[in-house]
Amino acid sequence: MSRDEGFELDLQQQRVLFGAGRVDDVPAEVDALGLRAVVLIATASAKGAADQLSERLGTQVVARVHEVVQHVPTADVTSTTEVATTAGADGIVTVGGGSATGLGKAVAVGAGLPLVAIPTTYAGSEATTVYGVTGEHKRTARDVRALPRVVVYDAELTTGMPRRLTATSGLNALAHCVEALYAPGANPVTDLLAQEGARQLAVSLPVAVEAPPGSETALTARGEALYGTYLAGWSMEQAGTALHHTLCHVIGGTYRVDHGEVHAVLLPYVAAYNAHAAPAALALVALALGAPDAVLGLRSLAERLDAPTDLASIGLPADVLDEVAERAVAAVGARNPRPPDAPSLRRLLDDAYAGRPPGTY
Amino acid sequence: MSRDEGFELDLQQQRVLFGAGRVDDVPAEVDALGLRAVVLIATASAKGAADQLSERLGTQVVARVHEVVQHVPTADVTSTTEVATTAGADGIVTVGGGSATGLGKAVAVGAGLPLVAIPTTYAGSEATTVYGVTGEHKRTARDVRALPRVVVYDAELTTGMPRRLTATSGLNALAHCVEALYAPGANPVTDLLAQEGARQLAVSLPVAVEAPPGSETALTARGEALYGTYLAGWSMEQAGTALHHTLCHVIGGTYRVDHGEVHAVLLPYVAAYNAHAAPAALALVALALGAPDAVLGLRSLAERLDAPTDLASIGLPADVLDEVAERAVAAVGARNPRPPDAPSLRRLLDDAYAGRPPGTY
Repeated sequence: MSRDEGFELDLQQQRVLFGAGRVDDVPAEVDALGLRAVVLIATASAKGAADQLSERLGTQVVARVHEVVQHVPTADVTSTTEVATTAGADGIVTVGGGSATGLGKAVAVGAGLPLVAIPTTYAGSEATTVYGVTGEHKRTARDVRALPRVVVYDAELTTGMPRRLTATSGLNALAHCVEALYAPGANPVTDLLAQEGARQLAVSLPVAVEAPPGSETALTARGEALYGTYLAGWSMEQAGTALHHTLCHVIGGTYRVDHGEVHAVLLPYVAAYNAHAAPAALALVALALGAPDAVLGLRSLAERLDAPTDLASIGLPADVLDEVAERAVAAVGARNPRPPDAPSLRRLLDDAYAGRPPGTY
Repeated sequence: MSRDEGFELDLQQQRVLFGAGRVDDVPAEVDALGLRAVVLIATASAKGAADQLSERLGTQVVARVHEVVQHVPTADVTSTTEVATTAGADGIVTVGGGSATGLGKAVAVGAGLPLVAIPTTYAGSEATTVYGVTGEHKRTARDVRALPRVVVYDAELTTGMPRRLTATSGLNALAHCVEALYAPGANPVTDLLAQEGARQLAVSLPVAVEAPPGSETALTARGEALYGTYLAGWSMEQAGTALHHTLCHVIGGTYRVDHGEVHAVLLPYVAAYNAHAAPAALALVALALGAPDAVLGLRSLAERLDAPTDLASIGLPADVLDEVAERAVAAVGARNPRPPDAPSLRRLLDDAYAGRPPGTY
């Protein structure tokens, strides 16, 4: 929506802390929310941080959940909600990537409990009211109760992130910025946030993967990447998403392919698909990337980050591409600047499957 | 606070509508909040818009308040709160400048009622939790209940704004951006919003005062000015304020000088006062103004807008300058990048009183 036509913002209450070492402030934030009995949900990779946090929270932690898988299976939401209810929990704290945050959000909605999120990847979900649960397919919804009341972005918790996850998760965040620039709710404020988010991510991600993991440079880069992630999530929350996110949800939520890896592979292809329908938005993407062209800039960033660049290598079966194209067309509706059709989308998926350079679709 | 040291954001729930003609959406917004009995507060200059709105809201308006003066006198808060209570109101709607919004905020806090604000000037108060009430002196406080639940920025309501008010009110908004760039809570997000707000205001205000009042150009400029105002208020809400706002409150709240006019006069002088203590922030101001220097740029913008440039002409008595300096030093504390002292502040006020070009203080 252009500014001339008017636009709207729906801001929600959220407290956001940024800074290396800020995880130490979580007990004070939990106290400030008046919580006395929280369920601590953490991914396996965040177990060390979760153990330390649990020790500091002491008896305020009434249960812990370590079993976190991608795409938030319905069964996990049910079991974790039961854990929370049985333990008499009055809040949820998550430490981990998008899967931990996602499980926390679904439980927060179901049980009506406030959520504190400590993200350890660049998912960006912590800045949105969108949550998803996966039965046969992944279904997403919006609920203000899904929005974490407090988010703590602590770069020290991300310094151990493997190179590949840094790349794929970072490109997931970048995808939020790209789509926010042409999604239905795009407006001057989301443009501002999405451009700055894309710029922060484009500059910091290569440094985050290349700098020595324990170095001050790496820590600074990861702080910038988390800040870019927040802007990405915030702009996506207000602007919405389009074809790229729909494709990622269809593929990731149905065929159990890694969410971030699908994002990493598809982003340049979807930019190529939308190039003529959203030229102004993609020019802003190019500018944020410091590249002469958005498609080339996105592809070259993915290559520099050693991110996967084809769907075959990340485990998508070859025989589902028709189904993916058809389901994505049905799911995205009019939300994409260019309403997709199955044949052109199938050509995109063919190229992405083989990892060929993005063409015109 | 720099990003390296970490920073915090405290976002609150608020719905914001932008666009010419959007005042027509107010009844639907009032309904969406579940309000059935609102007090409509409007400044005299907004009476036409308030009458139309009242007609559309029909029996949902249970009382109207037309007596709105600057700086929110305690007596007006008391009487309007009584009106609201007596009428069994469940909400407040304001139409007008900072004084109408300010009265609405104080009543919203006192009576615990939700507020819908329709700003008709560039005060920016509608984007903040700060409210002020003036007894002997003006006192300000923060309360989340003071933040309007819904804000409607409709440029059509501002096309009749006189040239001088456009200038002084616009410079008031610009002052929010300037101080947000060096106030204690300044952070990367507020920097982003304040820079963009300053840019929008610097570009749109000259057009708003110079374009034929009924023209499409004027309407577009006033829409941009309202958008800049929102960014100004939002950045000020998160970053806080410093010496300039303190001086304006001391002068405006005690000596009953027009609030916007004090802002317009003092802004270049305070920029000069802080030039060496906040060089990076003032470089961003210069850039946003398209000027080689912030002080010169602010002064030249004020002159182009025909805004007042001396304190004498706006009615401040000459014999209060010592008192103003001393009270401002006491009130601002450590919030200014350069902790002020009374003698240097007195020199600033001397120059501002006479309208001499800002010097070094």
